[in-house]
Amino acid sequence: MFMKDAAQIKINVGKISLSPDRYFSPDPAQREIARELYDEVKDAPLVCPHGHVDPAMFADENYQYGTPTELLFIPDHYIFRMLYSQGHTLESLGIPLADGGEVKRNHRKIWQIFAENFYLFRGTPTGMWLTHELADVFGVNEKFNGDTAGDVYDHIAAQLEKPEFRPRRLFEKFKIEVLATTDAATDALDHHRKIRESGWNGRIVPTFRPDGIINIDRPDWGENIGKLGEICGFEISSYKKFINALENRRSFFKEMGATATDHAALTPFTVELSEQRAEDIFQRALQGEKNEIEAKLFTGHLLIEMTRMSVEDGLVMQFHAGSYRNHNPQVYQKFGLDKGADIPTATEFTHNLKPLLDKFGNDARLTLILFTLDETTYSRELAPLAGHYPAIKLGPPWWFHDSLNGMRRYRDQVMETAGIYNTVGFNDDTRAFPSIPARHDLARRVDADWLAGLVVRGVLDSGDAQEVIHDLSYRLARKSYKIAAN
Amino acid sequence: MFMKDAAQIKINVGKISLSPDRYFSPDPAQREIARELYDEVKDAPLVCPHGHVDPAMFADENYQYGTPTELLFIPDHYIFRMLYSQGHTLESLGIPLADGGEVKRNHRKIWQIFAENFYLFRGTPTGMWLTHELADVFGVNEKFNGDTAGDVYDHIAAQLEKPEFRPRRLFEKFKIEVLATTDAATDALDHHRKIRESGWNGRIVPTFRPDGIINIDRPDWGENIGKLGEICGFEISSYKKFINALENRRSFFKEMGATATDHAALTPFTVELSEQRAEDIFQRALQGEKNEIEAKLFTGHLLIEMTRMSVEDGLVMQFHAGSYRNHNPQVYQKFGLDKGADIPTATEFTHNLKPLLDKFGNDARLTLILFTLDETTYSRELAPLAGHYPAIKLGPPWWFHDSLNGMRRYRDQVMETAGIYNTVGFNDDTRAFPSIPARHDLARRVDADWLAGLVVRGVLDSGDAQEVIHDLSYRLARKSYKIAAN
Amino acid sequence: MFMKDAAQIKINVGKISLSPDRYFSPDPAQREIARELYDEVKDAPLVCPHGHVDPAMFADENYQYGTPTELLFIPDHYIFRMLYSQGHTLESLGIPLADGGEVKRNHRKIWQIFAENFYLFRGTPTGMWLTHELADVFGVNEKFNGDTAGDVYDHIAAQLEKPEFRPRRLFEKFKIEVLATTDAATDALDHHRKIRESGWNGRIVPTFRPDGIINIDRPDWGENIGKLGEICGFEISSYKKFINALENRRSFFKEMGATATDHAALTPFTVELSEQRAEDIFQRALQGEKNEIEAKLFTGHLLIEMTRMSVEDGLVMQFHAGSYRNHNPQVYQKFGLDKGADIPTATEFTHNLKPLLDKFGNDARLTLILFTLDETTYSRELAPLAGHYPAIKLGPPWWFHDSLNGMRRYRDQVMETAGIYNTVGFNDDTRAFPSIPARHDLARRVDADWLAGLVVRGVLDSGDAQEVIHDLSYRLARKSYKIAAN
Repeated sequence: MFMKDAAQIKINVGKISLSPDRYFSPDPAQREIARELYDEVKDAPLVCPHGHVDPAMFADENYQYGTPTELLFIPDHYIFRMLYSQGHTLESLGIPLADGGEVKRNHRKIWQIFAENFYLFRGTPTGMWLTHELADVFGVNEKFNGDTAGDVYDHIAAQLEKPEFRPRRLFEKFKIEVLATTDAATDALDHHRKIRESGWNGRIVPTFRPDGIINIDRPDWGENIGKLGEICGFEISSYKKFINALENRRSFFKEMGATATDHAALTPFTVELSEQRAEDIFQRALQGEKNEIEAKLFTGHLLIEMTRMSVEDGLVMQFHAGSYRNHNPQVYQKFGLDKGADIPTATEFTHNLKPLLDKFGNDARLTLILFTLDETTYSRELAPLAGHYPAIKLGPPWWFHDSLNGMRRYRDQVMETAGIYNTVGFNDDTRAFPSIPARHDLARRVDADWLAGLVVRGVLDSGDAQEVIHDLSYRLARKSYKIAAN
Repeated sequence: MFMKDAAQIKINVGKISLSPDRYFSPDPAQREIARELYDEVKDAPLVCPHGHVDPAMFADENYQYGTPTELLFIPDHYIFRMLYSQGHTLESLGIPLADGGEVKRNHRKIWQIFAENFYLFRGTPTGMWLTHELADVFGVNEKFNGDTAGDVYDHIAAQLEKPEFRPRRLFEKFKIEVLATTDAATDALDHHRKIRESGWNGRIVPTFRPDGIINIDRPDWGENIGKLGEICGFEISSYKKFINALENRRSFFKEMGATATDHAALTPFTVELSEQRAEDIFQRALQGEKNEIEAKLFTGHLLIEMTRMSVEDGLVMQFHAGSYRNHNPQVYQKFGLDKGADIPTATEFTHNLKPLLDKFGNDARLTLILFTLDETTYSRELAPLAGHYPAIKLGPPWWFHDSLNGMRRYRDQVMETAGIYNTVGFNDDTRAFPSIPARHDLARRVDADWLAGLVVRGVLDSGDAQEVIHDLSYRLARKSYKIAAN
Repeated sequence: MFMKDAAQIKINVGKISLSPDRYFSPDPAQREIARELYDEVKDAPLVCPHGHVDPAMFADENYQYGTPTELLFIPDHYIFRMLYSQGHTLESLGIPLADGGEVKRNHRKIWQIFAENFYLFRGTPTGMWLTHELADVFGVNEKFNGDTAGDVYDHIAAQLEKPEFRPRRLFEKFKIEVLATTDAATDALDHHRKIRESGWNGRIVPTFRPDGIINIDRPDWGENIGKLGEICGFEISSYKKFINALENRRSFFKEMGATATDHAALTPFTVELSEQRAEDIFQRALQGEKNEIEAKLFTGHLLIEMTRMSVEDGLVMQFHAGSYRNHNPQVYQKFGLDKGADIPTATEFTHNLKPLLDKFGNDARLTLILFTLDETTYSRELAPLAGHYPAIKLGPPWWFHDSLNGMRRYRDQVMETAGIYNTVGFNDDTRAFPSIPARHDLARRVDADWLAGLVVRGVLDSGDAQEVIHDLSYRLARKSYKIAAN
């Protein structure tokens, strides 16, 4: 019956039931093949070569998660941004203030708001991951909504107390073969050191992320350069010393297990400056004189310099382009970075990367993995670049596009030109540790279904498809990121 | 048999048969669910919050449509542009000249040309709508082509004479709950007044469209400012008075039932000018001194001003960007506006809207509905913006993209990031009154099939899908456009 | 079982089996209709109005292909670029040096490398075409890989010796109705002349491609102008004489059977210069004074001039925009043009083509066929332009997008706005003569499946679909390119 005046959204109540065939095509022939391919890899170890899990979790064997809200809601801008977009204030959701001031602290009440608004995530990857995670990791079997919020909260809180939920135990239960974190160039990697020294044999490796010392227009750049000097043990008084310091830190990260670096910029602009020009810009920046153009030139130049270093030290280079960070100044000023206000922009690779590629694109020692938020570049620029240059590989669909449809669009637009073997498998790219299995599972299902679609259309034979599902789920990530066997 | 030298296109003859399962996936499992979901809403009232139907139709109880050609062909640039693209002159199709000069007047002959060329619309939304409309509204049961043209013409002409085909009767038959027209800021809304005073209780509301007085580079701007002064009762001699006049007119539109405004621009460029700068530009424009840059600045500034007014008076703000109007100067000079020669351009929201959003993006009192003709912005810019800013909602796929595939691309690219509840349901956006049911029916079918696809893939359970089909077909439009209960 | 340490890719061995239903939807209802539609056209003659086959093949009745590697691998940059992207040097693959220096000549060994790496083409159009070609043209029935490489090589080599494999015999076997080559404006068309004089009645026609004499910034421009003067019999000492020479050559090409011209540029920028301005730029260019801006202006102006000539002489005008040629300077310097290093760029038509369209867009004598590598322009610019301007038609998906998914995206994004009849059917656009049937077959299958999808969703009736499959496979190409009946 049509409910004419039900302006409010009603929420259905029921049991969670994860379909064993979820995310597969409804066509019976395709579904059967998808299921077989998925069965091949559903229990394969997880390779996590790019992500943002806090290594502190593993440094302390008895790490405490805090409340369910602290673990699952407050740190996850994928989630709270959606409630913000519908008019909930960040204060009311317990998001901490940048200045450390007080925010609402009734975590059970925040959880209730979250649950009442969980219908907002219908059809979204966040909705899919969380539904899987609640069921499989925490054993919740009620549908998550306003009616069940309290029970679910109590249930999770009780689980988190159990020894088998300690991070190291979950890491083992999840069958994570390697987990890469993302760490500032100036980080001393103390948590990583503690993990190594603890005798626990979970493999957690750092990733070298130098944005804070490369982007001279950041407000905290001077401070970061100070830290860099301290940690290197010499003053960063010149561009030359800056380059030495970068090499020095890379070498340290490598010793600590890193196999890769990670770089972010608004655009993939690259340019080669003379050493003198670079020195001039650097000196002026040290004295606080910066401008937008010089910042762009310096970043564009450093990208090429960092590429040179990767050629030399063998660290895989990741490059993420196209996010306009902190687009909302009110949210940024009050709540700081990473609050769901990063908005993609149109991105150009063909012209922008040319100076870098002219120099290193043909060097087979280099692995440069490109990520984009501008899907128009998949078929137009990235797949043709990766299908020609020996140095280029394509990262998986990133951020907003790490989703059921996003993965399908990526495969649809990338594979025919770049082929499967110029891509690097899956990244979960998450801060949310307990969501890792759900993310890999979704990706494996989408890959199995995509391959099944090729088999049923006579594009691949089933033997090839069986090879490829192992490549996509496990082997390509391991190979591309130089994850040697344990 | 292969017809080697049949260079001409032959047209098939037969009965129209609208499949009850049209536009649904062929997969039996998905189709069954789609049918159930569609059944939920197929008879729901139509909410029409954005369109271009002439209110004169309803002001006069005995309104005469003219010939079938005058009703269904001549005013519809979606249709005649296609014949023009294949070499038919607009003169031969009876399109009126801008200067009021004579054009071909044999409407039966024009209708015959239309019918002979109806094969051009195979697979197009226009073809789908018209096929539905002929069958369901006019009771035509022959396939429309050169052989049946005359019979169909006579049949429609006879129907149009019947009392039950008067606009008000069709409005009721179509179960239109509310129909918004689009009206110039300087319009006295006489037709709307007559409708209200007639005692008929069909709800037809105006929408405030100020383009003619905001875009100072329009040739008719001075004239429009004159009209604005007349209708407001004071001379628009300053920017300040101009702003007063805008507020004055908005208030009048609101009294007359408007719940929304509508704005169009080539780009979403916004900028905040000082009051002095705005005044200077305005004064020069009054004296006929205009240039492209100042026109862009003034429009960009006024967009922010109109946003402020929406925050204050509560009118929902619609913004349509990216159409290069009157791209064909020969057609424009001879036949005027809206002749199928509006061509989309690449559009940028992330940077362009920032000044407006910095000011009002976090204000939950504002509803700013964005429309685009550049589908690349769906996943890259619009969905992330709507998934963060409380003020932003996304309009349905617009114009060329208001189609079977266009809607699928929109859902595919928008929903995972913005969620369903940052979109505003369907707009029919049409001048063609009798096509309204066909347009809503197509949208409801596409939505039902999309949701069925989610159910059959285990993304939504059927209870949620049942909720959502009501939201997409009816509730979201009603809520977003502040259509209070009748 | 999951193979944890199988880092290498294993290759499956087995018989090739081309599914008779390949590339069709798995849905049984859709598949059945697709099969019926495909049966209608699977044996229809091939119309090849745009491609790069060497006419020398047909000038000599006893033309020798060379080794399988020389025929199928070395000239095909679609293929060797993929091996290059994975770290194989072009030298090791036998690609000839630009300076004529020695390269590896063991063609059997190169073939072995190709076969071992054929897994790289899983899911790519190159993989699909070659698999079809090996089976259907050469009668290979083993799966192509490292194990079978030698046998396949010997088998093909033996086939190539047979009289029935001579190019003219294959041309007839393939049922090619017409094959257009692409020829420089300064080409004397000697091969075409020999073919005509040989008495063989295969129809092979030239296409006029003037890029070498229009783009004044090419290093070989001066040389090309010299050749142009020689072949025309007068010195090209002025812009006026240059225009005369162009008209002169077009007329010669037309006599030799050409029905079309072909133009390429990085962007679709057009502009109308005064005759004096054009003369000035031309004179400076003759003296070696060129700059980027003048080169762009001159090309943009000449595009309009060439359009005028097409209006006058009736040659169909093709325009390919958006490829950044020779993006990799190391590859270009060592190996020259067309080595898989052409990378697409974002392309803009709405503004750029306006000066040309203002002048000739409404002229029904003109057929201007547009091609793009930027798929975002399909729905945003190209379909709306083709759906309005009488002169514009859309070419099929080009280059990287001439693929299973590429064709689906094209139909999805173009057809609803432009309609089927503003497109021009299929182009195989290939240098690889033996791959022609595979390319047409793939396109016909994709079209049949697309139409079947419309039938099964109630968008087209089966009679219309039957008409359209003939249009898409044969009639539209023939009509659009003015291929008169044999």
